[in-house]
Amino acid sequence: MGGDFGPQVVIKGATDAARQKKVDLLLVGDAQRIEKELSALNVRGLDIEIQHASQVVDMDEKPSDALRRKKDSSIHVACRVVKEGRADGVISAGHSGATVASGIFVLGRINGVDRPALASIMPTEKKPVVFIDVGANVDCKPHHLMQFGIMADVLAKSVLNITHPRVGLLTIGEEEGKGNAVVRAAFDLFKNSSLNFLGNVEGRDIFSGEVDVVVCDGFVGNVALKLAEGLSRSLGRMLKTELKGDIISKAGAMLAMRAFKRFAQLMDPNEYGGAPLLGLERIALVCHGKSNATGIQRAVEMAATFVRNKALDQLVAGFEANAELASLRRQTRPAKQVAG
Amino acid sequence: MGGDFGPQVVIKGATDAARQKKVDLLLVGDAQRIEKELSALNVRGLDIEIQHASQVVDMDEKPSDALRRKKDSSIHVACRVVKEGRADGVISAGHSGATVASGIFVLGRINGVDRPALASIMPTEKKPVVFIDVGANVDCKPHHLMQFGIMADVLAKSVLNITHPRVGLLTIGEEEGKGNAVVRAAFDLFKNSSLNFLGNVEGRDIFSGEVDVVVCDGFVGNVALKLAEGLSRSLGRMLKTELKGDIISKAGAMLAMRAFKRFAQLMDPNEYGGAPLLGLERIALVCHGKSNATGIQRAVEMAATFVRNKALDQLVAGFEANAELASLRRQTRPAKQVAG
Repeated sequence: MGGDFGPQVVIKGATDAARQKKVDLLLVGDAQRIEKELSALNVRGLDIEIQHASQVVDMDEKPSDALRRKKDSSIHVACRVVKEGRADGVISAGHSGATVASGIFVLGRINGVDRPALASIMPTEKKPVVFIDVGANVDCKPHHLMQFGIMADVLAKSVLNITHPRVGLLTIGEEEGKGNAVVRAAFDLFKNSSLNFLGNVEGRDIFSGEVDVVVCDGFVGNVALKLAEGLSRSLGRMLKTELKGDIISKAGAMLAMRAFKRFAQLMDPNEYGGAPLLGLERIALVCHGKSNATGIQRAVEMAATFVRNKALDQLVAGFEANAELASLRRQTRPAKQVAG
Repeated sequence: MGGDFGPQVVIKGATDAARQKKVDLLLVGDAQRIEKELSALNVRGLDIEIQHASQVVDMDEKPSDALRRKKDSSIHVACRVVKEGRADGVISAGHSGATVASGIFVLGRINGVDRPALASIMPTEKKPVVFIDVGANVDCKPHHLMQFGIMADVLAKSVLNITHPRVGLLTIGEEEGKGNAVVRAAFDLFKNSSLNFLGNVEGRDIFSGEVDVVVCDGFVGNVALKLAEGLSRSLGRMLKTELKGDIISKAGAMLAMRAFKRFAQLMDPNEYGGAPLLGLERIALVCHGKSNATGIQRAVEMAATFVRNKALDQLVAGFEANAELASLRRQTRPAKQVAG
């Protein structure tokens, strides 16, 4: 029921994915509204089930309030049907915080995961990069970053088909020992892990495409993600203004329209429409509120790929392989407290 | 003596500024080399003094080592002559870390400043924005952020001529209460300060130009600064590739060359060539290693404006006006320790 453009766009995108990738759908929300939207589309031959939910989480609600008070909200019900095994994953373009909260609360975490994290897949000059955490966890400990790395590594393998993802730790200098206290401690964990750890990476390395996974805490990641979004948009507007600044440039820009369109498509955030919430016993995808039908379609397709490639099994295996590094115990009981 | 392009570029930029803005120069470094570079330039009528320094900090040295072992390095001597009152400020395109370390150690801090911070002035869609801290302090407490805000406010007033700079706290949601623990606590300090506090700002707000000062810790700031740098460069390369992708677009791009040049100039990092290190008893400017002569010239001019507009006096006044909010005591003795 969520998203800035409402259920129409969500249902269109979902049915497009269903047709393209042979995905069965379970649409959760106001049944009457869903029926109406579906009747306007060609859904012949698609396996579509509808699950009514009487409530919707409003965009200005606190996630914790929504979780407590709106047990029959579309996102809550959607998570529940997934938990019950009636669907393999949940996708929402509604309230991000409520989606994350419901996902964690209802779906439950994989053994070994303390903090589920949001990953974002972003275009670079070469292959796309997985950026984690982009906002689920603001204050993190070193072993949380280790967990994020394990999860994003699996995502890069299962969804982006990268055999040995190169994993980097986002910090402020490439040498070992650079960064804040949390990152410096996380460096040692990563170094000893089973990941293909590249070492520290800086902000300037993300978009050149030299790394497949970039790990940071959810505060830094969310600031960085929004900064990248805002900067791209501002640069676009500034360039447009200059291109309109003299008549010859304006003519040139019109002539180069095809190149600008190709460029815009490269940068279209809808190409990777959903941010996977990783670490849960099922997959959950948080879509941008501004996602168009293509964004939703891509998110559904990503979820299908994730499920078909058995990424959850890989996640479990990843946590088993790095159990000690990713575990809470090692980090949260410093020697002095044990001694006391 | 520093900078990727060596003293030639630094001396050219400095003498250009001296001519344009009637600044007197005190050039510190290898005297013979400086004489040689000067002999190739037209310096008639300029007031230029040379101070020999026998050592140079190498780019791979640790700042703390350089500070201890190289007392006769150009940056160390430059800070000393400023401390002695023979010059009003120090500018370096050499080792950033060594410049920051020497600046803090030799020049000393203004009363009330715990952590001098690096500010960066960046172009936006409207007026430039002051971004602080971009790397001097990685692990910060709330009152450090408050201090950064006071310092950047003065910079925006004295160098950018903004009467009531709008100050924002960089975080991951606009509502009060959003962010990590440090930012949430800093929000209260800012709210009660004498600054024109706008509230929380997000990564996407920085480049639209709706805020004049953006405050964050040096880890987030450095990641963000380098990300902005890297993303701009990557987007430029990606657009260039698309513009070369078909012959018609290529012709269009050539026609629009003037607009692209204007755009490149808008984004030229040399326009604000130096990152001021604020909070010291004198002004110090850290230039990008890749600064060209224009970058150095702008940095010298910025230092001159800073000194002529008596920004140091304003800094002292700013700390007096917000003494309690910016002070260490209020923050580092939580009640339970006092009670114990």
